[in-house]
Amino acid sequence: MTMLRCTHVLLALVLVSHTTARAEDALPSWKAGSAKRAILEFVAKVTDEGGPDFVRPGDRIATFDNDGTLWVEQPMYTQFVFIIDRIKQLAPEHPEWKTTQPYQAVLENDRDAILAAGDHGILQMAMVTHAGMTDDEFRRIVVDWVTTAKQPRFKRLYTECVYQPQLELLAYLRANGFQTFIVSGGGIEFMRPWTEKVYGIGPPQVVGSSIATEFKMLDGKSALVRLPKVNFIDDKAGKPVGIGQHIGQRPILAFGNSTGDREMLQYTTAGSGPRLGLLVYHDDAVREYAYGPADGMPDSKVGTFPQSLMDEANRNGWIVVGMRENWKVIFPSEQ
Amino acid sequence: MTMLRCTHVLLALVLVSHTTARAEDALPSWKAGSAKRAILEFVAKVTDEGGPDFVRPGDRIATFDNDGTLWVEQPMYTQFVFIIDRIKQLAPEHPEWKTTQPYQAVLENDRDAILAAGDHGILQMAMVTHAGMTDDEFRRIVVDWVTTAKQPRFKRLYTECVYQPQLELLAYLRANGFQTFIVSGGGIEFMRPWTEKVYGIGPPQVVGSSIATEFKMLDGKSALVRLPKVNFIDDKAGKPVGIGQHIGQRPILAFGNSTGDREMLQYTTAGSGPRLGLLVYHDDAVREYAYGPADGMPDSKVGTFPQSLMDEANRNGWIVVGMRENWKVIFPSEQ
Repeated sequence: MTMLRCTHVLLALVLVSHTTARAEDALPSWKAGSAKRAILEFVAKVTDEGGPDFVRPGDRIATFDNDGTLWVEQPMYTQFVFIIDRIKQLAPEHPEWKTTQPYQAVLENDRDAILAAGDHGILQMAMVTHAGMTDDEFRRIVVDWVTTAKQPRFKRLYTECVYQPQLELLAYLRANGFQTFIVSGGGIEFMRPWTEKVYGIGPPQVVGSSIATEFKMLDGKSALVRLPKVNFIDDKAGKPVGIGQHIGQRPILAFGNSTGDREMLQYTTAGSGPRLGLLVYHDDAVREYAYGPADGMPDSKVGTFPQSLMDEANRNGWIVVGMRENWKVIFPSEQ
Repeated sequence: MTMLRCTHVLLALVLVSHTTARAEDALPSWKAGSAKRAILEFVAKVTDEGGPDFVRPGDRIATFDNDGTLWVEQPMYTQFVFIIDRIKQLAPEHPEWKTTQPYQAVLENDRDAILAAGDHGILQMAMVTHAGMTDDEFRRIVVDWVTTAKQPRFKRLYTECVYQPQLELLAYLRANGFQTFIVSGGGIEFMRPWTEKVYGIGPPQVVGSSIATEFKMLDGKSALVRLPKVNFIDDKAGKPVGIGQHIGQRPILAFGNSTGDREMLQYTTAGSGPRLGLLVYHDDAVREYAYGPADGMPDSKVGTFPQSLMDEANRNGWIVVGMRENWKVIFPSEQ
């Protein structure tokens, strides 16, 4: 082996990760098309050190909604299924629930009565199931549930109903020096126990809605106790506020899928320099679900994507990523 | 060059950063002694992959207070000096301040009258100087100030009055797979504009007190507007709460210097597995300041370290790091 040969080996070692990150097939589950091209061009542009659109790594912030953007949100938000399951599990300790709404509706699987309870009823059930324990205890409850409960249509764990193209995109962005964050209307402590394993996004990079906590001594050991009181709602105009609190930097890329993400995309794309806003568009009833404004698809209360959002996306140059024409596969299991 | 030789070169390249991170002189400004030994042993233990105290990298969370732990806090908190300077700068737009307390006291440099205004007066002045602009505008105000204002005794920028041994410790921890966070009672947006450059800690890793913000359209562009309303106080029992909100994991190492850090150290060291709590002890009037419980040092309202905290530290095995006997140099300029 010559000296030259040895240098080549060294060089190859240094270059291999760089090349992989840049190659077109870093997104193998994305079909060729304008959405994939827009992503690749954006990343090439902000990582081009000599170029006019270069963004230094510390400022490469990408934020992703969770429900409907990274994992399935139909037929109802996963966290709501968790609430219903917990209510049933806790029912033996609360005999009064048999005759008290909205608990009675849950115990009797009366969907209409559950919906009739409205936001107030849902909030009430969220507090009963999410508060009154320490942070460590709640983490265990979530892990127990998320490693056993299954999505009704796909008969798989909810954490297996995540979108393979998005897993590739998250990894691709990180390989190109981005910090990837979740910014979700869902509960922050409902996501943190499993997001690192599933998405590669650790607890500090998760932003979400939260209830208040209190620092207390319990059995001589200090702990954070979860209180039945809303601390922050990370949805709609709350998303930029949550980004400000947790990240402290305006993202350069944001990916959502509904009206809850509108302000996050507005805030992201209003910054100076290169910006990219994207929306998942659920138009694939065969492989997943269809609930958007076009093609006579039914209006959805979960993950609402009205025509006005489509119009705003077109006006602002946000990329609308229809599942049908952009994603070769939907779930990791299809690979 | 033989094949064997080439392999050695490759191996050396791979090992060099690892060895550097572990070597004793990763902390050259720390004198040999029990504090330095405790830090090195702790890091060796949690990074020993086969050992009983191994902690996986994602759980290696280290939190540092800022005022008095990473930079000078005497003769008064830096952010309070910023408030006073801003009041003077804004005074021409507020002629009524000449005859209204606590502003009048500031404009007349009447230290006793400023202190007499108490917490309410300070809060009032904090709101006037920290709210009413966008997040981007406030960032520029902080950068302008922090790149020009000088600490009165050392005649240097405040960002040059940071502790060299702590800069080394932060870098050493990161080289060993730790994520380093600031958890300070100071304003989160007062720190974020400069912490990455000075400490290597980016905006998302800064936890602090905050005021409320609101998402608004201004001149057709979306922005976060800072409101004159307290959102969160990240001090005392608020520190574990802030850690829960921002980090979502119990730290394994926490470093503070006053009663404001007591609960953060309690929360950190109450976790299972290896934990390390540390306190800077300001006992060096010659090179910095002396304001602790021992040796008849004066009691301080800034960075209070009463005998009860010393007793608790001894009881819990928290390491008290006296500046005099543990730090070879205090500031980067002394090197």
